[in-house]
Amino acid sequence: MIEITGKHLIDGQWVSSTATSFESANPATDGVNPWSFFDASETDANDAVTSANRAFRVYRRKSAAERAEFLNTIAAEIENLGEQLVEAAMSETALPQMRIEGERGRTCGQLRAFANNLLNPISPVFIDHAQPERQPLPKGDSRLTNVPLGPVVVFGASNFPLAFSTAGGDTASALAAGCSVIVKGHPAHPATTELVAHAINRAIEKCNMPSGVFNMVQSTTPQVAQCLVQHPQVKAVGFTGSQKVGDILNKLAQERPVPIPFFGELGSTNPQFVLPQKLASDAQALANNQVASMLMGHGQFCTSPGLVIIQRGEGFDGYMTALGDAISNAPAGTMLTKGIAQTYNSQVDKLSSNPALSIIASGDAGNGGCQSGAIAFSVSASDFIAQPELHEEVFGPCALVVVCDNDEQMNEIALSLSGQLTASVFGTDDELLDYIDLVDDIAQSVGRLMFNQLPTGVEVCHSMQHGGPYPASTAPQTTSVGSQAIHRFTRPLCLQNMPVSIQPEEIKDGSSHPQVIV
Amino acid sequence: MIEITGKHLIDGQWVSSTATSFESANPATDGVNPWSFFDASETDANDAVTSANRAFRVYRRKSAAERAEFLNTIAAEIENLGEQLVEAAMSETALPQMRIEGERGRTCGQLRAFANNLLNPISPVFIDHAQPERQPLPKGDSRLTNVPLGPVVVFGASNFPLAFSTAGGDTASALAAGCSVIVKGHPAHPATTELVAHAINRAIEKCNMPSGVFNMVQSTTPQVAQCLVQHPQVKAVGFTGSQKVGDILNKLAQERPVPIPFFGELGSTNPQFVLPQKLASDAQALANNQVASMLMGHGQFCTSPGLVIIQRGEGFDGYMTALGDAISNAPAGTMLTKGIAQTYNSQVDKLSSNPALSIIASGDAGNGGCQSGAIAFSVSASDFIAQPELHEEVFGPCALVVVCDNDEQMNEIALSLSGQLTASVFGTDDELLDYIDLVDDIAQSVGRLMFNQLPTGVEVCHSMQHGGPYPASTAPQTTSVGSQAIHRFTRPLCLQNMPVSIQPEEIKDGSSHPQVIV
Repeated sequence: MIEITGKHLIDGQWVSSTATSFESANPATDGVNPWSFFDASETDANDAVTSANRAFRVYRRKSAAERAEFLNTIAAEIENLGEQLVEAAMSETALPQMRIEGERGRTCGQLRAFANNLLNPISPVFIDHAQPERQPLPKGDSRLTNVPLGPVVVFGASNFPLAFSTAGGDTASALAAGCSVIVKGHPAHPATTELVAHAINRAIEKCNMPSGVFNMVQSTTPQVAQCLVQHPQVKAVGFTGSQKVGDILNKLAQERPVPIPFFGELGSTNPQFVLPQKLASDAQALANNQVASMLMGHGQFCTSPGLVIIQRGEGFDGYMTALGDAISNAPAGTMLTKGIAQTYNSQVDKLSSNPALSIIASGDAGNGGCQSGAIAFSVSASDFIAQPELHEEVFGPCALVVVCDNDEQMNEIALSLSGQLTASVFGTDDELLDYIDLVDDIAQSVGRLMFNQLPTGVEVCHSMQHGGPYPASTAPQTTSVGSQAIHRFTRPLCLQNMPVSIQPEEIKDGSSHPQVIV
Repeated sequence: MIEITGKHLIDGQWVSSTATSFESANPATDGVNPWSFFDASETDANDAVTSANRAFRVYRRKSAAERAEFLNTIAAEIENLGEQLVEAAMSETALPQMRIEGERGRTCGQLRAFANNLLNPISPVFIDHAQPERQPLPKGDSRLTNVPLGPVVVFGASNFPLAFSTAGGDTASALAAGCSVIVKGHPAHPATTELVAHAINRAIEKCNMPSGVFNMVQSTTPQVAQCLVQHPQVKAVGFTGSQKVGDILNKLAQERPVPIPFFGELGSTNPQFVLPQKLASDAQALANNQVASMLMGHGQFCTSPGLVIIQRGEGFDGYMTALGDAISNAPAGTMLTKGIAQTYNSQVDKLSSNPALSIIASGDAGNGGCQSGAIAFSVSASDFIAQPELHEEVFGPCALVVVCDNDEQMNEIALSLSGQLTASVFGTDDELLDYIDLVDDIAQSVGRLMFNQLPTGVEVCHSMQHGGPYPASTAPQTTSVGSQAIHRFTRPLCLQNMPVSIQPEEIKDGSSHPQVIV
């Protein structure tokens, strides 16, 4: 068993410069867990960045194989934490054991996937050989590689205590890229954060990596967040969280003397467009599957389908009845934090009192504390378009069904959408061809577009794109999931006329790395 | 001969809503050319964006082959402008005929290179086939394509009236990507802008493209620039110009309700590091080649080498003498605009009165008006590090030689560098191996790193990277030159479980597009 110290991990040491502390909340009991955590000072934050910057100058020269071994070792050390990690995460999030174990598998799988990508790269580097005889001017030898940006700050996410937190996607892709990392642990699961930091630190020691390649600070204050985002040695930020906080941090990142990329994932309603033929043929299954997707993680997935766009016509009544039945039968659930539960319940109250909305059905709302219940509303297309606040994400098991009278209204809604991580279109092959302009317009607002499939379950693969136009993401030209996520933390560097003796392996003539040679 | 009307090109029509106008300046005579131009109103700017947005919804569905034909036709139509274009550009910029003809060749070559890349793509798309039997959960079919962002605003650059202006790199890559374009012509060469816009409009007609796929407005006011950058239908901005203006426009782009990418290239001193062995063996040639590079375009290239970092030792005196001789012999030159000449001359005056600097040599400064002369200063390493203003670009034929006493000072300067488009390291193969940490530190600040070559001459090729850390570029993860520039104006879109009947060609099984299939 690892003792939970409540300290920060800086340059391989467990330290704290403050006496102030905060507690680990237990949402299931609406009480606290038996650990407390030091609340970092700006000194701690600065020390963490200094450590990361020093380590970066060593780590950036590690080979792809060395970084792969490091990532694989982190995965093994996370698994070695065993039941202690699962129990800590359960007590801090109220998520069930199977979910935490599944998320641990996803986290380790992600680390190993990045390691595998380092060993078996798929994106070619571009090489232009010199043409000294070219007229009117000779052409130089140039080769395009990618270099790591430098120290990266990663903010842990409340809704994925493992897969998008301490050793989650951003940390894994930043380390894969050759960057050092400073994690700001999410205060909703500090013991989980500390345990995973332990695992990473063990991997650092086993792999002889520079001790500051990974650092972790625990904090509840905006000052420490600001200090990290604005530190001159920090070169990029990864963030998953609310639009409000993400906007503030992004602004801080852009107002620096030297602005840096802020990779924020800020929220999405994940619209589900149901086309008429499909509705006529499959109403009940559509409704049941959508509710099942929406209830996953008690609606606290970034890809939870919170918006349905549907037309009156054959199948409509059956769809609404089935949706209402499924919602009515949904059990109450414990949310990740009391704050999330309070925000959700107040958003639902506000929607309930909106005269433009009707409640289709609601489930058991539980008995206070961190509990909440599922609910579904309906609204006319014209009211939905007229009220911008209805386009905002409600984080939790809430769905809004927008009822259209015709294709024109559906088109209008597609054009009115804000940026989304995903959207789904449910239609037969024939009607998808007829609705191709609608499909194009929906595509304009999303990072991932599905056909007859539901958005929950984001595959970690080469072709994944997780991140759509703002506010879904602050950087829609990049992804936070899948092998391409590594490019968030690198930038292209053209090496011209570089002597072979100092060329990095991937740009050498005859390298095993995929190359396009001109 | 095309009549210069002074109007804006909006949706295929030459129009203006204002009576206010501005003149085309002739820097060679310090007078004006015989044309005047309407100064756009916000109405004109809004009309141009509306036109571009309408056209985008048609243009985005054009095939790669159709876009390639369009780009090739634009190139042919620019060539068809013949002598009229060359004469207009010469009279507006004071650049010599050979330079303008060369730049026209580069501009048309760039358009044709993007066309060729569309027809012969080199970057693979990633495809994950479905695994319906996978345990514990099935895997969906997903395919990663790139989609155009939407209407793009391009600001013409003063220093490349053709290659970075109306049909320059940003316009070419945006059109190649499937975006529509609104060019804000640079007021230093409005007739050149109008002629090239004519050529593009002819290509639109010949290729049956939607008329608003390219629009051009002439403007001298910040209001029109702000209106274009903040229009909700604009999805990205390309800009080449001063750090001051670029910072203002970038801030406007980030403060929008929906922020958009701002691709700005804002300035670079392009440091030249000279290592001791190389200096000892090759001092005179190094000095002569650096001055020749610095005098190209009278120092008004973005890659002009304005900073030399060198150590005392064997060869040093010879280097300084040769550099001084070459500068002394440099003729006066006419700058692109009176404003550029005034700024340059006042920056040189300020440097001349800085007690930390010594003048190595200066050339003929000309006879007022838009003329200026070359000059070189020397400064100690410690003074250079202590005075941040010495790190700023001086746009024009000015070089600052930083004299180091030892390796440590050279290392310190490498770590103190702000972001640069390029840097060069001059060293023998042996000493480059010894100085590998220095090379790594320099690489951290640049987009293109050269060895024993000079930075002027940016190759349009696959492996080019033109854009380094801020302030060289506001988007160092992208390039403004070379085939990869197309990715500024696209974003990844994951298409999941998409019926074959509506799949875009590049993601279809069996497509001729390069694919990585898992």
